[in-house]
Amino acid sequence: MVDSADLRWLAAAARLSARARPLSRPNPGVGAIIVRDDVVVSRGWTQGGGRPHAEAVALNGVDARGATMYVSLEPCAHVSSRGPACADLVAASGLARVVIGCGDPDPRTAGAGIARIRGAGIAVEQVDCPASRASLAGYLAQRTLGRPHVTLKLAMSLDGCIARTDGESQWITGPEARAHTHAMRAQSDAILVGGETLRTDNPRLDVRLPGLSAQSPRRLVLTHGEAPEGWQAIPSPEAIHGLRDDLYLFVEGGAGAASAFLRAGLVDRLLLYRAPILIGGGRQGIGDYGLSALAQAHDRWHKTDQRQLGKDTLEIYEANPCLPALSPL
Amino acid sequence: MVDSADLRWLAAAARLSARARPLSRPNPGVGAIIVRDDVVVSRGWTQGGGRPHAEAVALNGVDARGATMYVSLEPCAHVSSRGPACADLVAASGLARVVIGCGDPDPRTAGAGIARIRGAGIAVEQVDCPASRASLAGYLAQRTLGRPHVTLKLAMSLDGCIARTDGESQWITGPEARAHTHAMRAQSDAILVGGETLRTDNPRLDVRLPGLSAQSPRRLVLTHGEAPEGWQAIPSPEAIHGLRDDLYLFVEGGAGAASAFLRAGLVDRLLLYRAPILIGGGRQGIGDYGLSALAQAHDRWHKTDQRQLGKDTLEIYEANPCLPALSPL
Ligand SMILES: NC(=O)c1ccc[n+]([C@@H]2O[C@H](COP(=O)([O-])OP(=O)(O)OC[C@H]3O[C@@H](n4cnc5c(N)ncnc54)[C@H](OP(=O)(O)O)[C@@H]3O)[C@@H](O)[C@H]2O)c1
Ligand SMILES: NC(=O)c1ccc[n+]([C@@H]2O[C@H](COP(=O)([O-])OP(=O)(O)OC[C@H]3O[C@@H](n4cnc5c(N)ncnc54)[C@H](OP(=O)(O)O)[C@@H]3O)[C@@H](O)[C@H]2O)c1
Repeated sequence: MVDSADLRWLAAAARLSARARPLSRPNPGVGAIIVRDDVVVSRGWTQGGGRPHAEAVALNGVDARGATMYVSLEPCAHVSSRGPACADLVAASGLARVVIGCGDPDPRTAGAGIARIRGAGIAVEQVDCPASRASLAGYLAQRTLGRPHVTLKLAMSLDGCIARTDGESQWITGPEARAHTHAMRAQSDAILVGGETLRTDNPRLDVRLPGLSAQSPRRLVLTHGEAPEGWQAIPSPEAIHGLRDDLYLFVEGGAGAASAFLRAGLVDRLLLYRAPILIGGGRQGIGDYGLSALAQAHDRWHKTDQRQLGKDTLEIYEANPCLPALSPL
Repeated sequence: MVDSADLRWLAAAARLSARARPLSRPNPGVGAIIVRDDVVVSRGWTQGGGRPHAEAVALNGVDARGATMYVSLEPCAHVSSRGPACADLVAASGLARVVIGCGDPDPRTAGAGIARIRGAGIAVEQVDCPASRASLAGYLAQRTLGRPHVTLKLAMSLDGCIARTDGESQWITGPEARAHTHAMRAQSDAILVGGETLRTDNPRLDVRLPGLSAQSPRRLVLTHGEAPEGWQAIPSPEAIHGLRDDLYLFVEGGAGAASAFLRAGLVDRLLLYRAPILIGGGRQGIGDYGLSALAQAHDRWHKTDQRQLGKDTLEIYEANPCLPALSPL
């Protein structure tokens, strides 16, 4: 049985995992919090390159006897050359109880982590925690769909244009929205633009935020042709199934790339930055993606967040369903 | 001197005036509240056809001696065959104090109403009350610009389309947003569409809300040609300067009509209903309106309201500046 305090601690563990993103790749960013009598004993999150894991960091050097660990993902059951299985660490920890926000679909762990901890006489609860699941979107996409989680970003006017007809697109949104985009880039493993955007804008696509420039993601171009130096060519949207080490892919347009990904059903999230301007008959942000009637357009997206960024508005939409449901243990 | 309680009562009087809209036309919808010791003595708003005025309704049959009247517009100074000047009624009322939310630019009153009330020994305060000014937008547009206040409404997808390329546009938004549009129609004196929308959609443009169907506005069509039975032809956006009895004009598109009004600088407010759908390469809501660089598009609009209507989002933007500032008394 879990109570509302358990759910709040789990959500806190999920939020903590954000500190692991994106440098934990290709491992998931996980968060763990150890709590005794409603007081935090220690915390941990996945370290750069994926090791140590969150549980190992949280357990390191603390007396966890009788405490509860909240962890956003099921502790791993497999020993690796880079470290012990977290399930073994937890089993030996003296913890009284472990509350898990999301089962691990990796076949080496799925259920085995929980079984090993229970085998040590520790109470284990697995909850379907939306915050944990959301924090693991990239990992779950890789494990269940075999590809990165895909965010499509568009910066547009109130009338849905991303440029004037002559191509002028700098600037539509203001400095706050552009800084936010850079922060979103810094959370991604790779950024993609269409071949036409590469040829006309030759964008840097780097992270220009103090302290984060080392976090600039790899640069991909959707093209039937070759990629220039410093870029990786992606010959079709479906080819992202080959990107097994990338958890998060950030697609920045243009309209052709956007519609190609939408047509392939390969967009999980929309990030729409909207400036309070009217362009009037400009270039549209999204080209035809194969809709044959308005009815087909409905119920594909739901808004999960919205905020003001200076004069601009950011809206975030997630695809319905977010991800295929994982089978409960 | 006015204090914050005075400003709240003034805002309440301005809100009360909404009950007058649109049936007070061609007179402004005004609200008046008489208060003594922080208790409401009586209230009034402009009646159908414009008479009696709000002040006359509020003063009718009450003992107002020593009380304060809050009124959204300066009391009128001119006697008409349809009733006395409100300034005379107020002067004879025994009120101790009158607080006014907006001066009346009508030359028959401008300042004369206030002077007559002060002449009776009553304290008068005039405040620049944003709620009063907003509630009088149609009247102020007529008196200062010689035309109705113009709202441009668009119902569109996240990517700014108002129809698929084949013209399919029913439905983009859901029932809540459509009901809201009908409520907005019911507050307007006239609705306008472009000739092409009239020919292809033959829209009814009536108010289909329980109890409000009698409030369906007059129907106008922007066209170089003739208007069919039941419609009035408007040969150019500038021709709305001839609509002297309409306070509020509601422009419902399409893209050609929208861009014609924007090009002429004749849009005061945008009402943007946005459905959580992507159409992709559909018909744009706003055509070219003569922008020659992105920089010209900025700082023309600011958001004043936003709300969720079922699955759809409504955003309201006002033109900068809202209206030319009235000279303070
Ligand atoms: N405001 C914003 O947020 C924003 C963002 C990005 C771009 N933009 C603007 O958008 C404009 C460019 O957009 P665009 O629509 O013309 O082009 P685009 O989407 O950048 O690129 C289209 C190209 O992508 C490749 N492509 C598309 N579908 C493909 C598929 N299924 N398989 C393989 N390759 C595929 C092709 O490249 P190849 O021809 O190389 O084969 C195609 O020519 C520019 O003006 C740019 O400034 C604005
Ligand atoms: N989703 C929505 O909110 C919404 C709302 C309305 C319409 N729509 C869709 O929009 C489409 C129609 O839009 P549209 O852009 O083709 O046409 P439109 O804006 O409805 O009408 C254009 C017509 O307006 C007249 N006009 C334009 N500028 C003028 C000027 N300066 N002076 C005088 N007349 C002027 C001309 O009429 P004449 O040719 O008669 O001279 C012109 O042909 C339809 O598919 C409709 O379903 C969608």
